[in-house]
Amino acid sequence: MIALNIGIIGATGYGGTELYRILSNHPEVSSCTLYTSSDEHKKYSSVYPHLTEVCPLDLHPIKTEQMKDEHDVIFLAAPSGVSASLTPGLLSEDIKIIDLSGDLRLKDPDQYEKWYQKTAAPGELLQNAVYGLSEVNRACIEQAHIIANPGCYPTATLLALTPIVKHQLVRSSSIIIDAKSGVSGAGRKPSIGTSFTEMQQNLKIYKVHRHQHIPEIEQELKDMDPNIGPISFTTHLIPMTRGIMATIYVELAENQSQEQLMDLYNQFYQNMPFVRVRKDGSFPGTKDVYGSNYCDIGLKLDPRTGRLTIVSVIDNLMKGAAGQAVQNFNLLFGFDETLGLKHLLPVYP
Amino acid sequence: MIALNIGIIGATGYGGTELYRILSNHPEVSSCTLYTSSDEHKKYSSVYPHLTEVCPLDLHPIKTEQMKDEHDVIFLAAPSGVSASLTPGLLSEDIKIIDLSGDLRLKDPDQYEKWYQKTAAPGELLQNAVYGLSEVNRACIEQAHIIANPGCYPTATLLALTPIVKHQLVRSSSIIIDAKSGVSGAGRKPSIGTSFTEMQQNLKIYKVHRHQHIPEIEQELKDMDPNIGPISFTTHLIPMTRGIMATIYVELAENQSQEQLMDLYNQFYQNMPFVRVRKDGSFPGTKDVYGSNYCDIGLKLDPRTGRLTIVSVIDNLMKGAAGQAVQNFNLLFGFDETLGLKHLLPVYP
Amino acid sequence: MIALNIGIIGATGYGGTELYRILSNHPEVSSCTLYTSSDEHKKYSSVYPHLTEVCPLDLHPIKTEQMKDEHDVIFLAAPSGVSASLTPGLLSEDIKIIDLSGDLRLKDPDQYEKWYQKTAAPGELLQNAVYGLSEVNRACIEQAHIIANPGCYPTATLLALTPIVKHQLVRSSSIIIDAKSGVSGAGRKPSIGTSFTEMQQNLKIYKVHRHQHIPEIEQELKDMDPNIGPISFTTHLIPMTRGIMATIYVELAENQSQEQLMDLYNQFYQNMPFVRVRKDGSFPGTKDVYGSNYCDIGLKLDPRTGRLTIVSVIDNLMKGAAGQAVQNFNLLFGFDETLGLKHLLPVYP
Amino acid sequence: MIALNIGIIGATGYGGTELYRILSNHPEVSSCTLYTSSDEHKKYSSVYPHLTEVCPLDLHPIKTEQMKDEHDVIFLAAPSGVSASLTPGLLSEDIKIIDLSGDLRLKDPDQYEKWYQKTAAPGELLQNAVYGLSEVNRACIEQAHIIANPGCYPTATLLALTPIVKHQLVRSSSIIIDAKSGVSGAGRKPSIGTSFTEMQQNLKIYKVHRHQHIPEIEQELKDMDPNIGPISFTTHLIPMTRGIMATIYVELAENQSQEQLMDLYNQFYQNMPFVRVRKDGSFPGTKDVYGSNYCDIGLKLDPRTGRLTIVSVIDNLMKGAAGQAVQNFNLLFGFDETLGLKHLLPVYP
Repeated sequence: MIALNIGIIGATGYGGTELYRILSNHPEVSSCTLYTSSDEHKKYSSVYPHLTEVCPLDLHPIKTEQMKDEHDVIFLAAPSGVSASLTPGLLSEDIKIIDLSGDLRLKDPDQYEKWYQKTAAPGELLQNAVYGLSEVNRACIEQAHIIANPGCYPTATLLALTPIVKHQLVRSSSIIIDAKSGVSGAGRKPSIGTSFTEMQQNLKIYKVHRHQHIPEIEQELKDMDPNIGPISFTTHLIPMTRGIMATIYVELAENQSQEQLMDLYNQFYQNMPFVRVRKDGSFPGTKDVYGSNYCDIGLKLDPRTGRLTIVSVIDNLMKGAAGQAVQNFNLLFGFDETLGLKHLLPVYP
Repeated sequence: MIALNIGIIGATGYGGTELYRILSNHPEVSSCTLYTSSDEHKKYSSVYPHLTEVCPLDLHPIKTEQMKDEHDVIFLAAPSGVSASLTPGLLSEDIKIIDLSGDLRLKDPDQYEKWYQKTAAPGELLQNAVYGLSEVNRACIEQAHIIANPGCYPTATLLALTPIVKHQLVRSSSIIIDAKSGVSGAGRKPSIGTSFTEMQQNLKIYKVHRHQHIPEIEQELKDMDPNIGPISFTTHLIPMTRGIMATIYVELAENQSQEQLMDLYNQFYQNMPFVRVRKDGSFPGTKDVYGSNYCDIGLKLDPRTGRLTIVSVIDNLMKGAAGQAVQNFNLLFGFDETLGLKHLLPVYP
Repeated sequence: MIALNIGIIGATGYGGTELYRILSNHPEVSSCTLYTSSDEHKKYSSVYPHLTEVCPLDLHPIKTEQMKDEHDVIFLAAPSGVSASLTPGLLSEDIKIIDLSGDLRLKDPDQYEKWYQKTAAPGELLQNAVYGLSEVNRACIEQAHIIANPGCYPTATLLALTPIVKHQLVRSSSIIIDAKSGVSGAGRKPSIGTSFTEMQQNLKIYKVHRHQHIPEIEQELKDMDPNIGPISFTTHLIPMTRGIMATIYVELAENQSQEQLMDLYNQFYQNMPFVRVRKDGSFPGTKDVYGSNYCDIGLKLDPRTGRLTIVSVIDNLMKGAAGQAVQNFNLLFGFDETLGLKHLLPVYP
Repeated sequence: MIALNIGIIGATGYGGTELYRILSNHPEVSSCTLYTSSDEHKKYSSVYPHLTEVCPLDLHPIKTEQMKDEHDVIFLAAPSGVSASLTPGLLSEDIKIIDLSGDLRLKDPDQYEKWYQKTAAPGELLQNAVYGLSEVNRACIEQAHIIANPGCYPTATLLALTPIVKHQLVRSSSIIIDAKSGVSGAGRKPSIGTSFTEMQQNLKIYKVHRHQHIPEIEQELKDMDPNIGPISFTTHLIPMTRGIMATIYVELAENQSQEQLMDLYNQFYQNMPFVRVRKDGSFPGTKDVYGSNYCDIGLKLDPRTGRLTIVSVIDNLMKGAAGQAVQNFNLLFGFDETLGLKHLLPVYP
């Protein structure tokens, strides 16, 4: 056992507390320290009473110099903008960084500043950060020092599209992604729009044509197939806590049968423990992955229109954030990819 | 006051009880009789206790011969298949029929039998039935004897598309409709898939590429623009009781600015009391129309892809069923279109 | 038609918008003016988009002097503390006031200051305000100038207890009220505890033994039977938007059969259009009154313990706030008690 | 490692699938066989698609003779009535039985037949079955062969009451339990009353004064203090999937301060890993234990009435069923009580 010493920045957010849920039982983690800029010196269980008697830890203020010496890995689960400013101060030979925010994902700082309306991280840092879509970038992740953990929508979308995009099977500008998310994706900060009373019995569309995950998805798709054109991408808020579904419509660049497509997906993901391709004719619901690190995918060619419909679901806090971060942590250190994650079966019902 | 005598077939379903909610306070209705094939002779309030002391009526067995003589109008809110077999026996000079099922909507009986997997209604009946999309077919509805009340998804979809399709602005095969519905759309018959425990915290896609509303939408779109090709249409179950949202993606056949499109929609619906076009940049949520007959529409051209995204929301039991049926009833008899409906403001929150 | 001119203070809260839903269709109201201290000069429909094209009104700042001259009635739907300070400036011969806050309900200012931790309204004002439990205080309400509209929990509780307390049938200190409310009762101001993500799939107890509705309930019960001792009263937040249920346990001071009790309740409420006593063995759910002004009551004597269990449900924004306020408005002006309310049937499902 | 061979009867119910979620990762379980009377020979993952690629097992028909030879332990998660008839055929020296139904809990077969309206299990079997409230009956459980696993409501209720009842601090007939449960407690069989559409936005009371858990609670309370009289006990359905809250009102037989009571509870449960007494003034919500085996308890003496209010919460499928069954399994075999359970932290949010 290696017994790693872990730091979590942004422990009071939902991504942070989900990291704690996983890492506190991870066999290779010997200690965990929690950092925050909002409830310093409080007991963590006073902020999250579900951890009463489970977690004895206090919350610490963020002091990057000190953290650099104390930890083997830092997970950054802070809002966008914070990672860009903190990460440079954390860099060191002896530390690995897994950033859950959007700050290190876009290689082009101009794109970041355009879509996030914030100052980008230093260009060198952006170049060194490896995009942590575990199933797709495995080789790079294993060699990386800094991981840009993918966004929740991009994870669901890219896992659904990678097999056909990598095989250049998609017609250039035909990708339409209708994405739907549970409300926990909006974070813990309260607002009228995400209050129980306004969200229950409600279904909303938001950030139409301007969601910051658009350039992230396009960057990764183009990396697989430079011919991929701009995507249509919309995001909806669903009256549920956890879960993302991406319903994707594409036109194929060459004729494929449903059987060929099923084979392609099944082969592509056959050794990937966290991607489950549903059998032909079957589609997943978000509750099938609740609380787990799975991404479930279903697909069906429409003979009437020639379009392919692909559906993928994840738990936005797990495979869409903390779960994939731990999966990447496992890859970074050469552990079994499923360590600390496999026993977290979907909680159903 | 004309004081009409109404019959509702299928009163024990959700469409039936919503009809009762509206018609029991309609100023031109003098009496209402409730018919069912499942709880005959029971008190209606024993089947729906929320009507205790409100509704003294009993449920009656369906006897078409007798009903023909007693009523001025029959609303059929029975499942598909039932209307096709009952309606011929109800036809008469003196009675008007508003059918909420899918049985009379498709002009081509082969299409009906293909998508519904049931025996179609007689061809002559199908030809005489007028498709009751109130805002679009007003003139025909006013002269009709038999109304085929539109489906919930088609209502949301067609109201969103009509202005641009009527103006031949849509590229032939480019229409993609990602539709989402609350669970009441599945009716009152219990099933594992629609139980509270399985649907809460869940988001599902269903009937991929084979929903029976596909031919209905295509029929009506082609009626406006014969060049419209097959649509991509998917349906999702949302963990909420009421509400439909259609998120629609289209490519335009000719260049249009966002301003031109807003003008087009605003003009098209300016005298339509139940369609509310949201101002530029604003999109509706389903709760904005909860319990009311409104259809709210928002739209945004995406300069990056050239595609137009249109969002429309309705309450599936109101504008998607009973509300529009009463609106058509008003048109049939020359009443103000909003009678019995206007005071039912959205229930918010 | 009298055509009254109405002012609503606190229009941006949930009570205010529910008042608008009712009063905008009330046949005796000629005009409605909306006041707020938070979004002055905005269009009301920008704060509540469900009123797009329905409500053309602007929000006005609160100027008591001016309001006094312009309105026949003022509804105060502001938070506690505001009414106490505003009401004195609104008093006039020509104006009637209906206050939905808790400020005018407690006759004893010390009790107010103890439970609300705020400065009480002037003693004279408290003495003049009539407690507006419509079914119980009808005679006084009809003569009143100022109505203290009851709290949501007290309404559900008192309607359930009045028949037996008025008949001195309850053992002095035996009353236990386990009350449950939907989240809209907490108002529109966002907080972590009432956010969708934290409240969905959650059930909480709050303000144990210190809810400000305790002295209100005790005051009214003692008014009917001075022997009534202190009550046990707890409040729970239920993951739903609207609805209150009070489950009440009492010991009877003298032997009564279930039949006698049913008779007592049926007689007591036989001419009260908004209280529905369920038949023996049947109990209401909150959805049975959703969006309506009904209070439904069920009761059952337990032969094993001798205790009586009474259950009552209301919609907290209707009979628990705006609906009862309008019912009192009708009584104040001698209108039919159900005017503007009766057509608002429960929205089910 | 002992490597036990497990059988689960009733695997298609919610209790069964929750047992699978826990036991499939239990370090002392070498194999698991699933039995059912409803979907024999199907793949388990076809009945529960969330187990796709996780669980390769088939469902087997129930053959008691064979099972007796093959398994070290049988978990019975079948409906009431089934265990009573199956268990006699399973009895053997070499097998331990953990029954999650209500069939083996009541020592008095007459009580069973009165409350369950079914034929009781043989009297000898009832006498041999040990009531498996882990924290309270630990010593007996460790020696047992047959465990009657407690009901969900009794678990929440008894853990809340045990410290004061064991110390004879409760006035004989003063116990009132207002219990609330999520809908998964009603099982997987669909019904109108538990459909999503009817339960969302709804709160119901059911089985008033006649819930079959009443005699179970009374039996156990009287076992601790023979003076305890009949309880008042009501059950409510809450629009959430998992979770039980019991709000309990008692009068104390002798004067106690809040501090004394807190000390009593803290001491009583100090070495019990799954019971968490909240600190003074703090109360748990059901989401604090979601998906975990914890029971959280808060309490507050009301100086005004002298009554004590105790609140306890559990996840009905975990501590209220499968979780406690595994805890008892651990005790039966001398394993650490928390084995297979401790890493299942509450899933929050």
